[in-house]
Amino acid sequence: MRPSGRQLNEMREVSIETNVTKHAEGSCLIKMGDTHVLCTASLEARVPPFIKGSGLGWVTAEYGMLPRSTSSRMRREATSGKQGGRTVEIQRLIGRSLRAGVDRVALGERQITVDCDVIQADGGTRCASITGGWVALRLAVNKLLKAGDITSDPLISPVAAVSCGIYAGQPVLDLDYPEDSEAGVDGNFIMLANGQMIETQMSAEGATYSRAQMNELLDLAEKGVAELVAAQEAAVAA
Amino acid sequence: MRPSGRQLNEMREVSIETNVTKHAEGSCLIKMGDTHVLCTASLEARVPPFIKGSGLGWVTAEYGMLPRSTSSRMRREATSGKQGGRTVEIQRLIGRSLRAGVDRVALGERQITVDCDVIQADGGTRCASITGGWVALRLAVNKLLKAGDITSDPLISPVAAVSCGIYAGQPVLDLDYPEDSEAGVDGNFIMLANGQMIETQMSAEGATYSRAQMNELLDLAEKGVAELVAAQEAAVAA
Amino acid sequence: MRPSGRQLNEMREVSIETNVTKHAEGSCLIKMGDTHVLCTASLEARVPPFIKGSGLGWVTAEYGMLPRSTSSRMRREATSGKQGGRTVEIQRLIGRSLRAGVDRVALGERQITVDCDVIQADGGTRCASITGGWVALRLAVNKLLKAGDITSDPLISPVAAVSCGIYAGQPVLDLDYPEDSEAGVDGNFIMLANGQMIETQMSAEGATYSRAQMNELLDLAEKGVAELVAAQEAAVAA
Amino acid sequence: MRPSGRQLNEMREVSIETNVTKHAEGSCLIKMGDTHVLCTASLEARVPPFIKGSGLGWVTAEYGMLPRSTSSRMRREATSGKQGGRTVEIQRLIGRSLRAGVDRVALGERQITVDCDVIQADGGTRCASITGGWVALRLAVNKLLKAGDITSDPLISPVAAVSCGIYAGQPVLDLDYPEDSEAGVDGNFIMLANGQMIETQMSAEGATYSRAQMNELLDLAEKGVAELVAAQEAAVAA
Amino acid sequence: MRPSGRQLNEMREVSIETNVTKHAEGSCLIKMGDTHVLCTASLEARVPPFIKGSGLGWVTAEYGMLPRSTSSRMRREATSGKQGGRTVEIQRLIGRSLRAGVDRVALGERQITVDCDVIQADGGTRCASITGGWVALRLAVNKLLKAGDITSDPLISPVAAVSCGIYAGQPVLDLDYPEDSEAGVDGNFIMLANGQMIETQMSAEGATYSRAQMNELLDLAEKGVAELVAAQEAAVAA
Amino acid sequence: MRPSGRQLNEMREVSIETNVTKHAEGSCLIKMGDTHVLCTASLEARVPPFIKGSGLGWVTAEYGMLPRSTSSRMRREATSGKQGGRTVEIQRLIGRSLRAGVDRVALGERQITVDCDVIQADGGTRCASITGGWVALRLAVNKLLKAGDITSDPLISPVAAVSCGIYAGQPVLDLDYPEDSEAGVDGNFIMLANGQMIETQMSAEGATYSRAQMNELLDLAEKGVAELVAAQEAAVAA
Repeated sequence: MRPSGRQLNEMREVSIETNVTKHAEGSCLIKMGDTHVLCTASLEARVPPFIKGSGLGWVTAEYGMLPRSTSSRMRREATSGKQGGRTVEIQRLIGRSLRAGVDRVALGERQITVDCDVIQADGGTRCASITGGWVALRLAVNKLLKAGDITSDPLISPVAAVSCGIYAGQPVLDLDYPEDSEAGVDGNFIMLANGQMIETQMSAEGATYSRAQMNELLDLAEKGVAELVAAQEAAVAA
Repeated sequence: MRPSGRQLNEMREVSIETNVTKHAEGSCLIKMGDTHVLCTASLEARVPPFIKGSGLGWVTAEYGMLPRSTSSRMRREATSGKQGGRTVEIQRLIGRSLRAGVDRVALGERQITVDCDVIQADGGTRCASITGGWVALRLAVNKLLKAGDITSDPLISPVAAVSCGIYAGQPVLDLDYPEDSEAGVDGNFIMLANGQMIETQMSAEGATYSRAQMNELLDLAEKGVAELVAAQEAAVAA
Repeated sequence: MRPSGRQLNEMREVSIETNVTKHAEGSCLIKMGDTHVLCTASLEARVPPFIKGSGLGWVTAEYGMLPRSTSSRMRREATSGKQGGRTVEIQRLIGRSLRAGVDRVALGERQITVDCDVIQADGGTRCASITGGWVALRLAVNKLLKAGDITSDPLISPVAAVSCGIYAGQPVLDLDYPEDSEAGVDGNFIMLANGQMIETQMSAEGATYSRAQMNELLDLAEKGVAELVAAQEAAVAA
Repeated sequence: MRPSGRQLNEMREVSIETNVTKHAEGSCLIKMGDTHVLCTASLEARVPPFIKGSGLGWVTAEYGMLPRSTSSRMRREATSGKQGGRTVEIQRLIGRSLRAGVDRVALGERQITVDCDVIQADGGTRCASITGGWVALRLAVNKLLKAGDITSDPLISPVAAVSCGIYAGQPVLDLDYPEDSEAGVDGNFIMLANGQMIETQMSAEGATYSRAQMNELLDLAEKGVAELVAAQEAAVAA
Repeated sequence: MRPSGRQLNEMREVSIETNVTKHAEGSCLIKMGDTHVLCTASLEARVPPFIKGSGLGWVTAEYGMLPRSTSSRMRREATSGKQGGRTVEIQRLIGRSLRAGVDRVALGERQITVDCDVIQADGGTRCASITGGWVALRLAVNKLLKAGDITSDPLISPVAAVSCGIYAGQPVLDLDYPEDSEAGVDGNFIMLANGQMIETQMSAEGATYSRAQMNELLDLAEKGVAELVAAQEAAVAA
Repeated sequence: MRPSGRQLNEMREVSIETNVTKHAEGSCLIKMGDTHVLCTASLEARVPPFIKGSGLGWVTAEYGMLPRSTSSRMRREATSGKQGGRTVEIQRLIGRSLRAGVDRVALGERQITVDCDVIQADGGTRCASITGGWVALRLAVNKLLKAGDITSDPLISPVAAVSCGIYAGQPVLDLDYPEDSEAGVDGNFIMLANGQMIETQMSAEGATYSRAQMNELLDLAEKGVAELVAAQEAAVAA
């Protein structure tokens, strides 16, 4: 029933290649099927003004799409003079989500910026960005630990995200673009490795959903996140 | 236990005054305790390019805060040269939420813009904007119906929104600012009158939440939305 | 002869409600007939760079119109990316006018920002902003005096403003929108309580005016300002 | 008593050199003492949207200062990303003033843009721009008449402007920069050749003025405008 | 002598992987040593206004750097609100260079936009963008030819680019970043396959150069371009 | 053969009038035929952040065109909200070129900003800006030397620039606009007085060029620069 022939509760193939650029402190290229996102984590000396002198660290994120990551070319945000509303929403979400897995005291007064740049889009780019962004963050933090710059690990747990939705009347896991563009209801579910939730965003366009349906999607999301966490841990260990 | 002395499941006092400006096709001033939002609905001839010729209508929203609606003066967005990320997120949410209660075929090829301007803020401005925005929309649509410009009612159901959160370890309904600034977990719940959900946004900062906690907040939200729908209907009937 | 039926030298009904928002140090809602402007005065620690260390205070103003304050919806300046020329002109005028009534030495090195936001427009919004802005400023300064932060009153005199013009060949006082949009000549007159002038702006579009006509308008303006000062004093005393 | 040694009612030396650029339909370099403004009038095919099809013409103006026209270098507005409030105010004033002398029916559906660029500033640049701008406009209109593109002269009268102020307690004509920066009260007076007024802008900073003082400045302005009109007519006739 | 140990006239290893994204009509990932640029060619229906109806085609380019393509993170141009001067210069150069190899009549009235996004930077990104951009363009044009949308090949010749400079007193071919940051003189040389030149940009910072030195760099550039053209042809044929 | 009747290797008449504005530390009006550029050099206390404390000086440039310097009116960059790509390219070139003739140690930690504003354009404005900009710079530096603020001359050599191109198949010197708009190949050549090169920019549009042609243009440029340096020296000595 799904355009890709997947089972209702079947994820796309996940691949996470680490250390893909020589400059960033941590990096990976995450592929969720045909959605490809390059994630880099940059350690920066400067911290935002509101935490100067607090001893606390900060993790933030930025998101972008290459102009031809999509099926028709999008205008480059640098030429339109600002980041669009969707971009801003997504990068705020990525930052909030990653921070939920960080002990900011243990990180100390330093900032890590996670950049998520979509090379190729096929649905679910914000979830892939969070999942891949955490891997880049993990690798950058590992460098700090290895160098002895920090002594206790500030990463409490992996953070991963998956989208689910109601497609053709059925709850499905990990929407690709053909599903996403048809689904009347979809959601993004961001969780820790133990299933505790960080953020839940469900939304309907031209439809509504019941609590029963919401629970079905949450069940799928828990399954998906567990698989993503396994992929994250394998990638980091490699 | 709550700073305001309210019960855990007790809303702030709600007041909705209608027809507060002479120019707008529909308007109201909604007060959720000390949160005051002026909502106007403007009927416009022009429709966005992507629906020209489709016969479908469009409802969109814009959101703003007066500079001194908050406890310390905020910079005016018109002088900083753009709407901030939070503003854009909120106005996209208001627009999506209101459209979920609209039959765009019945509305016909016309646009209604709902402006929500916060006169005084004390938490929950986006939810108040949706609830009040629907009243302004209802009044504007009533004019179209009365004038015979449309013949079947495009408004399927009231749309209302409330925030809930975990404050001092307890699930509470309708957060005010002192609660909102302390709550580790909070959410915005947008529903139709019958409890069907349009959008669910739960988010944690420096905390996480379980499915059990999520369900407690949903229970509170259902209670709150029911009360808000009653207030909307009373205001429109007045 | 006037669309409103008023006498040539008759003002619209003036109402000034004070302390209308809980956050601002001073505030009022001024109504000149159907022109309604919310004025707030915000005391701010920071002073502009050019007076740092001078011991002098500063009073400045910002002006905005809600999108549906007008008969057809205006584009929100925050979305168009800048304040228009008219807005900038008006807020510079409000600031200059209010400063003319301030002893900046007595105020001491602090800034008060007066925000004037038009809720509903029916002509004369800049004059209403000055008149109401002074009331908000007065209330904020009263707080400073009461708290003992300053010891001598920095407000030299009330400052009030009224527009006059030549409508249908006759000099008229306090133009409303139907008059303003037809008048070939109009002016804004800003004065102290004793009639000394702060600013005079007369302008013709598709017409010119003689010195005799200018004097007739000045006579009307003196009458109007006297009535406005009485209303300001009554509001502050209330 | 005046820094320049001029009499109270004495203008600076005025010089108007015409046809100073080969591209513009009309142009002049006006010098009011050390204030030098290059004015060009450009005939354009496109008209603003609000007059399309009306048969009426339009005259508009833009104003700029070269970065080192002033005693310390100013930031170039093209690099700061927008025209400042003062620039916008001035160019709106120039446009309004020139239009007051134009019969827009006789001009026909075409636009003339008058650019006033300050090469060297020493006070009174907006007045010099209006006076010189009219000469550029006159020359451009002469070309239209000569070519037979229009048959009746759309220019009703010369338009000229001068500033006056109260300097060291005395009313003085045609303020230069040392006077302007000290004067507590000053004004710009824009008139037709017959002394009918188009715009009067009087303003006080740290001072106020009486009607008697206002009348003294108006007397000076009438004298100044008469001299400027003579200079305009001599320049055009040359 | 060179930091990389290369001979003076030795290029970095060149690799061009084609068809790297599923959406673009043509694409490649070009690697010049550690400089990696993703190039996509997008066929677009719309043409710029200045060629509408002319029957001529257009090729244009845009350039960007991912924030962490460099050794310290750069600010994202989309957040700074505009493309910097360097970016604009480079993308204009890429567009001009590619157009020099295009028969715009044979292309017909269509536009191809070549996006060059730097994934990892180590000197010479603009030259790599031109060389890789031509491959993406070639692949996109091949699709048009294969589909029969055009009948004669609009690509006259490969276009390739290489930088040369004077490093430590010696002329060297294909500067990497350590060389580029030290070289007092460097140049970019863009040529057709037959060595005819399209653009020559030589520039000195804190130094100058003689005609003899210029000729030495041109000799190196001819060698480099010949090797790049061979790599382009191999990649396209693969 | 040339539209102007000049010989292939004949420059336009060059005139350099110095000290044309009273405010700038150095200034000139350079005319290359009908191309007129006003150049001012402003000495500024502030230095860019990247040289603070280094003891080194900085020379930078800005470039602008008056709206009606061209045959049809151009939009003012201050109103379009940014400097266009061409403007940015040109002012970066002017700054780089002038710095090549400056001993930044001898200049000491101060900045000189050279503004080049095109009053009338007829081709070659960037070259005229460099040549005239150097004269303004020379005059400003002379003031520093005369005042004893610096003791050794930081200007190593005059810097001058000329354009050459292939017009109607022939190499020609100092292109005017009618030639420039037709030439398939043109270049800008910036040199010291001794013929050492600072920057070479050759570019083809719809054509290519051989090394032999490049050499012909270089020969012409050497002749042109020698004549320009003579004119610079005469102007400064006057």
